[in-house]
Amino acid sequence: MSSPPPQGDEPRPVPQPRPGGRTARIRAQVLDAVRAELIEHGYDTLTMDTVAARAGVHRATVYRRWRDLGGLITDLFTAAGDLDWHPRDTGSLRGDLTALNQEIQDSLIEEPSIAVALIAVSFRSEETAQALHRLWEDRYIQSEIIIQRAIQRGELPPHTDARALLIAATAPLYHQLVLLRTPPDPHLPHHAAASATLAAHAGAFTNPYPTDSTL
Amino acid sequence: MSSPPPQGDEPRPVPQPRPGGRTARIRAQVLDAVRAELIEHGYDTLTMDTVAARAGVHRATVYRRWRDLGGLITDLFTAAGDLDWHPRDTGSLRGDLTALNQEIQDSLIEEPSIAVALIAVSFRSEETAQALHRLWEDRYIQSEIIIQRAIQRGELPPHTDARALLIAATAPLYHQLVLLRTPPDPHLPHHAAASATLAAHAGAFTNPYPTDSTL
Repeated sequence: MSSPPPQGDEPRPVPQPRPGGRTARIRAQVLDAVRAELIEHGYDTLTMDTVAARAGVHRATVYRRWRDLGGLITDLFTAAGDLDWHPRDTGSLRGDLTALNQEIQDSLIEEPSIAVALIAVSFRSEETAQALHRLWEDRYIQSEIIIQRAIQRGELPPHTDARALLIAATAPLYHQLVLLRTPPDPHLPHHAAASATLAAHAGAFTNPYPTDSTL
Repeated sequence: MSSPPPQGDEPRPVPQPRPGGRTARIRAQVLDAVRAELIEHGYDTLTMDTVAARAGVHRATVYRRWRDLGGLITDLFTAAGDLDWHPRDTGSLRGDLTALNQEIQDSLIEEPSIAVALIAVSFRSEETAQALHRLWEDRYIQSEIIIQRAIQRGELPPHTDARALLIAATAPLYHQLVLLRTPPDPHLPHHAAASATLAAHAGAFTNPYPTDSTL
């Protein structure tokens, strides 16, 4: 992985302060090129060669490291999941869910939207579907802290189904903006967060069979 | 439209009891073929010619009537919207939303699922995206009767935002089954309906600025 390609015309790399620097730089160049190609031209015309050319990286390197388009797309999802992301702490359940929804809405309505491009690509193969599934799993697990904080504040009962509540709060955004394709509503992040919060306070996401009611 | 194709080898059609019978039959054959091809092979290999061959209809007829793949797909969505569909009347808001969600879940998890195939196709062009948007608009308008009945029963205040409530109830199913691709949960139709109902009873979907509070 770290040796230069056999017929390389690049200068021998200068030793980097941190190991893997050149490998990481090439990965960033290649994934940037995949993103740009997806956004500008879509998946239909995406090839390993157009990506290599746009990234300014040897074809041999791209083929050796990512094997095929499925490998490239999967790594793109992995890189998106690697970002050191944490949900905002606003001091209330409704505030936290609104902030989360605002981030989601922003990512879905920006032009061009890499988030929508990745969702579209996820319908193209089982491999890309699984890659998006893993990325979303990570995001929902990272978001569970919102529910834990609300439980610690006494805002929610301890046996709250964090995942069900997070999905109730966020699903209307994806449904309206990605599937129904309705025009963006600036109030939607707040409204969806507020209605999920009301439902949660009314006990909608409380595990009906707590194993220990004294917890 | 009703004249036989120029080089047809079919017998001249016998006059039908209702006008348009032959036209309607050809449309049904062709759209059945589109559905079957989409489900079995996906959009990538779909062509006007494979559809015509599978339907047993002259290529010239298919090209004249539907022009191109976009025309075929758009007509497929239109046909889905033409079905005389009405949401079930179970006597309660939660019951009606659960029945609606059960229908949605069944359509999304059946193998193969034409509903999921149509959603996947909607990401392939602006034309197919708009066709799905129109179909969903029709479905949500048809479903508003659920909210109207709940208002008439006194279960909901008159100024309830029917669309927002319907989306809160149904979005988790599409999100989990189509986007997150989590395994089907047999309790999800009921849970999503119940939490949207709790939120509605708590006033989550009430228009905050009723124009006439005596209504």
